[in-house]
Amino acid sequence: MDRAHLHCIQVYYEDTDHSGVVYHANYLKFFERAREHFFGPENLVAMQNEAGLGFVVYQARLSYHRGAVFGERLRIETLGRCESEYRVLFQQRAIREKDDGLLVSAEIEMVLLNKKQQPVAFPPDLVQKIHGALQT
Amino acid sequence: MDRAHLHCIQVYYEDTDHSGVVYHANYLKFFERAREHFFGPENLVAMQNEAGLGFVVYQARLSYHRGAVFGERLRIETLGRCESEYRVLFQQRAIREKDDGLLVSAEIEMVLLNKKQQPVAFPPDLVQKIHGALQT
Amino acid sequence: MDRAHLHCIQVYYEDTDHSGVVYHANYLKFFERAREHFFGPENLVAMQNEAGLGFVVYQARLSYHRGAVFGERLRIETLGRCESEYRVLFQQRAIREKDDGLLVSAEIEMVLLNKKQQPVAFPPDLVQKIHGALQT
Amino acid sequence: MDRAHLHCIQVYYEDTDHSGVVYHANYLKFFERAREHFFGPENLVAMQNEAGLGFVVYQARLSYHRGAVFGERLRIETLGRCESEYRVLFQQRAIREKDDGLLVSAEIEMVLLNKKQQPVAFPPDLVQKIHGALQT
Repeated sequence: MDRAHLHCIQVYYEDTDHSGVVYHANYLKFFERAREHFFGPENLVAMQNEAGLGFVVYQARLSYHRGAVFGERLRIETLGRCESEYRVLFQQRAIREKDDGLLVSAEIEMVLLNKKQQPVAFPPDLVQKIHGALQT
Repeated sequence: MDRAHLHCIQVYYEDTDHSGVVYHANYLKFFERAREHFFGPENLVAMQNEAGLGFVVYQARLSYHRGAVFGERLRIETLGRCESEYRVLFQQRAIREKDDGLLVSAEIEMVLLNKKQQPVAFPPDLVQKIHGALQT
Repeated sequence: MDRAHLHCIQVYYEDTDHSGVVYHANYLKFFERAREHFFGPENLVAMQNEAGLGFVVYQARLSYHRGAVFGERLRIETLGRCESEYRVLFQQRAIREKDDGLLVSAEIEMVLLNKKQQPVAFPPDLVQKIHGALQT
Repeated sequence: MDRAHLHCIQVYYEDTDHSGVVYHANYLKFFERAREHFFGPENLVAMQNEAGLGFVVYQARLSYHRGAVFGERLRIETLGRCESEYRVLFQQRAIREKDDGLLVSAEIEMVLLNKKQQPVAFPPDLVQKIHGALQT
């Protein structure tokens, strides 16, 4: 995942459960945080306020390999690809920073909806953003 | 708290953290769930859709006595009192069902806001609801 | 899903996000709550305390069809099947109660781990529980 | 709060609710994240693994002034003071970065518990850490 976007996550108390590791649903949160930074929060806010557009998760597939514990730092790798004018597929991985161990891998498919909840074709600059993302 | 409204909570994996007990912020969620049942979710939905009104927490004071663990059942006791036309105070307690042990007690002050985020006086039937609540 | 286990979920403030519908990661929480009731929380606690065993999610596949809003009631349908001695597959659906609308469907694969984080074969009574579950 | 410790929070989808602003309980999470950085996550992990010690919230008082919306950045200010050998009081504020608007202020009292859940006196270096914290 050479050209993947990278985002750092610190594992806090709130992220863990009594089994001692990060609660499985929280990886979906981590992956979404990373996608928001991939697009830039200010761009998502502008799309919403100016055009009434918002991304929605359509499909999610997650494979859990190892658990993360309190105090660890994770690296979220994000790679996007437009599957059609209407659908983007994100390949994402949560990696433990200290040893590069793969914790969770995911494929997240998303669509863009307008205010009437209808799917809209991605604007060209968004397609470019998705395909041209470089590590920042 | 004789005339308190009662609401039952099951402690799930998601509620705990790696220390083994319920994460402290989650009691605010439990207390809000109980208040929503106190008012009736359908009434809150109607207030919002028909009058654009919604409750907002203004002050919260919490005392933590003991922790709850996975699998336990809690009883949330809720008692409301209008402090003014604009402010309601809820006294709430999270009790462990099996031994009636007090886990967390709270005082939550709320106001009612309209769509412009201005406080509005409580409608008379709401005041009556708050003061007349019976165990259900 | 005739013999599916049924569990009811009330949609609270905490479950929604600013888009107006339930935040996508929270369905994983709803599905886990339903699985905990499928097994019985007291049985999960006993397995953990007496044998040091706990379930862990290994794979999750989710399809999002429609969003749920604040105040709605959902019915979580859960159907389990042992795929091997070591792996159970749960087919789960979140249904909107008022019109039986399908919101989210999921396939969740789980394994049972001991304290050393090694997978263990399911005890026979657990296999029976998984295959014989009746609506309760 | 001149010598306050500062920590930055990005408001994500997960943090908001359907009212459009950050869900009230999540500020307790933000404040805890800030306190974990105040102490240093690696120090908290070491205290737990080597001495079996962990902080627990004993009292929390929160005042909500304004709501934060998706995409905003918050600054969490944290100031600690030992009230006794056994109790530390944190004064914390959530500030909106773009206009320095005060959103939520809080007072959080904590104790340090050993594995038997007994309060222990703060070690001298911890007291120094609490009183001598500088902006980092």
